[in-house]
Amino acid sequence: MNYDLIVIGSGPGGYVAAIRASQLGMKVAVVESDLLGGICLNWGCIPTKALLKSAQVFQYTKHSDDYGISCNAQIDFEKIILRSRNISATMSKGVEFLLKKNNIDVIKGFASFCANNTIEIDINNEPQKISAKHIIIATGARSRSLANVMIDGEKIIGYRQALSLAKQPKSMLIIGSGAIGSELAYFYNTIGTQVTLVEFLPSIVPNEDDDVSVQLSRSFRKNGIKVMVDSSVESVDTSGDTCKVNIKTKKGTEIIDAEIVLSAVGITPNIEGLNLEKSNIVTEKGKIKVDEFYRTSAEGIYAIGDVIATPALAHVASAEAIVCVEKIAGLDVKAINYKNIPACTYTSPEIASVGLTEKRAIAEGYQIKTGKFPFTASGKATATGERDGFVKLIFDAATDELLGAHCIGANVTEIISGIVTARNLGVKGHDIIISVHPHPTISEAIMEAAATAYGETVNL
Amino acid sequence: MNYDLIVIGSGPGGYVAAIRASQLGMKVAVVESDLLGGICLNWGCIPTKALLKSAQVFQYTKHSDDYGISCNAQIDFEKIILRSRNISATMSKGVEFLLKKNNIDVIKGFASFCANNTIEIDINNEPQKISAKHIIIATGARSRSLANVMIDGEKIIGYRQALSLAKQPKSMLIIGSGAIGSELAYFYNTIGTQVTLVEFLPSIVPNEDDDVSVQLSRSFRKNGIKVMVDSSVESVDTSGDTCKVNIKTKKGTEIIDAEIVLSAVGITPNIEGLNLEKSNIVTEKGKIKVDEFYRTSAEGIYAIGDVIATPALAHVASAEAIVCVEKIAGLDVKAINYKNIPACTYTSPEIASVGLTEKRAIAEGYQIKTGKFPFTASGKATATGERDGFVKLIFDAATDELLGAHCIGANVTEIISGIVTARNLGVKGHDIIISVHPHPTISEAIMEAAATAYGETVNL
Repeated sequence: MNYDLIVIGSGPGGYVAAIRASQLGMKVAVVESDLLGGICLNWGCIPTKALLKSAQVFQYTKHSDDYGISCNAQIDFEKIILRSRNISATMSKGVEFLLKKNNIDVIKGFASFCANNTIEIDINNEPQKISAKHIIIATGARSRSLANVMIDGEKIIGYRQALSLAKQPKSMLIIGSGAIGSELAYFYNTIGTQVTLVEFLPSIVPNEDDDVSVQLSRSFRKNGIKVMVDSSVESVDTSGDTCKVNIKTKKGTEIIDAEIVLSAVGITPNIEGLNLEKSNIVTEKGKIKVDEFYRTSAEGIYAIGDVIATPALAHVASAEAIVCVEKIAGLDVKAINYKNIPACTYTSPEIASVGLTEKRAIAEGYQIKTGKFPFTASGKATATGERDGFVKLIFDAATDELLGAHCIGANVTEIISGIVTARNLGVKGHDIIISVHPHPTISEAIMEAAATAYGETVNL
Repeated sequence: MNYDLIVIGSGPGGYVAAIRASQLGMKVAVVESDLLGGICLNWGCIPTKALLKSAQVFQYTKHSDDYGISCNAQIDFEKIILRSRNISATMSKGVEFLLKKNNIDVIKGFASFCANNTIEIDINNEPQKISAKHIIIATGARSRSLANVMIDGEKIIGYRQALSLAKQPKSMLIIGSGAIGSELAYFYNTIGTQVTLVEFLPSIVPNEDDDVSVQLSRSFRKNGIKVMVDSSVESVDTSGDTCKVNIKTKKGTEIIDAEIVLSAVGITPNIEGLNLEKSNIVTEKGKIKVDEFYRTSAEGIYAIGDVIATPALAHVASAEAIVCVEKIAGLDVKAINYKNIPACTYTSPEIASVGLTEKRAIAEGYQIKTGKFPFTASGKATATGERDGFVKLIFDAATDELLGAHCIGANVTEIISGIVTARNLGVKGHDIIISVHPHPTISEAIMEAAATAYGETVNL
């Protein structure tokens, strides 16, 4: 078979690329070796949000008395997991439907390159060759293992197993406090598992602004999570009934006992087995090298999403898919501005941020103006009983440009996209201050934080 | 006493005006005849949000099984009301603290004009006169009564009583389906009161886009609220144990029995007793006439908030306060763009909108492009089990300008402010499409709705 475009992988990079290409008149095939929708739909964004919603509801039942409601709630772990798996299955079916609706051939199998424009797919041990003028590699990534803490899928697990355990562990030690580690720490702790969160760096959610890390750490500890920073797991002894985890801290070595160890120390791109050498596709540090329009070193071959060195986020992969395909189609396309990519962590409190942290802005030599509005001063947060958190904005004192926004608190993952759009439009401090934000909302804190930066807030 | 500025009323117009003026160096007094913070903090935005949060938590307990949680919950009505009252008291104390911190004199009493720059305040039957170079009237508004349905405070009540009932009514008939009527319909229905919602116009939340009204109506009916449109209450017989409400519908007359009737047919400005004639302050249809900087017909006297003919919303009053005071202080101020004021209704699903409805845009002669993204296609909404709703965007087909945004669904009150700011910056269709919205969020639906309007969405 001969296509205009073959997409390898059907995650939020791959399926979006395939559909956009089909809309633009290309004949398209998608090759997928696993479930349609990739990690995002099946083992990432979506099933975690399902679990976290169950945790949120359970948390409300635990605090229902605060709201004038008495209740005695119990979780059914199997049901929570099943609900999450069913939601992933629904979303995966949705992708199947969309691909079909857009007349895209879906080929189930593992692809590898035989020549620049041809790939071989092993379908039930029957190799089949297909070729296309353009091929997009969107194969994503998988859990990385630490050399001394190898994932065995039983006692030492990755995120996949953590989303589909057969029974709830009594205790869990999580290595790594990025979005995955922190979200699962929140989930398991809320439903009653004793959680220890171990971070190698000096603060949890280490990519976030320091103030955000401090706030999350405080909330986690208040809710009973044991948070260990500046700590590294040296070894895990799985020979007994439980895991004995040997942790090096600044104060010495500590041994912690946990039923399960979850390794959430990052991801590694899926490039093995693709036979990239065959097509002279250059990689660097395990990732495929591309230009601003996702062209690899090989003519007609592109790569997007977690296999390249841009932020490993579903929305980034989708945005790259659109830009890559529209460029192939000859549309007038602008390259993505990677300085304006939001990131969200769906713990409670939630985290949402975009742009430079305060530390980073200073390191880059900016003179800055910062404004922070705490949710203790927010009417909405007070009314809903969710006063942990704040919005912090960082402006360039010279130009009034909004360099960064850092939010932690209830529902803040919903307020960040407005900041992204505004930044693309060149928003400055007073543009935010004079925009009438509805009262009472959490989003008002954006306006208040801007007003604070300029000494104009009336509510602090 | 002689001040630079006297503000009459301490609601979200008055207290904000007073504090901003103090920041700008003025000597300021606030006169308040009731509770600090006005209706918003004491009988409006804030206490309703507190009640609605209790209802939301109770709704989660009722549907907890969907989330893998078994529970048997019961509400304590008195406790729910008490919590709401306490939150209002906390917020009111917050305003007291802010006024004190900003060295503002707070005078408790009822103000009336004796001359242009002088007002008399009746303090415990001792009239006291104070004057100022500038006086801002920010006295707000109160429940309007229909001539044939007079509020008696017992069986026929206004919003104040609805927020502080001693016991939960078994049944309630609500007249008027604006924000107040709809929010209280949702609250009382959720906690188990049998609710009938009567709207004179052909659709509920009649200021919203028709699609939004249809969606809310569907959600309300699904949850057991009896929704009657094109219906008017002719009379209420309160002589028996319950109220017999005589309703004229398109199909004839219907009599409905309800323990309580809530009149939520709008508000009327508080201008009586101010002695406005004394200062030659001109009113029109019961509201004080002002120019774009809130100057009344009398030199040095201004009016903001619900006493003037702008939208009766807390955030509008606060924005007017800032503009009014900054103009008095001689700063370079731009008049408020009333085409870009968001409005929110905190029912479940929530409603948030800004700009023109589809009907209005067509009536104004625009050629439009609309895009609608339903939450049934949203990963976040699916994961959280809140798939009722959509985002609908309306663009000017000629200029790509975003004329209106209409959102209904979980958390949409948090996503509208970003649209307001973007509209102030002249946002066009593709500015939204190319802004990377975080996945998975409800806010992504904004990007998807824009892409739908331009035939570019991949997710429908």
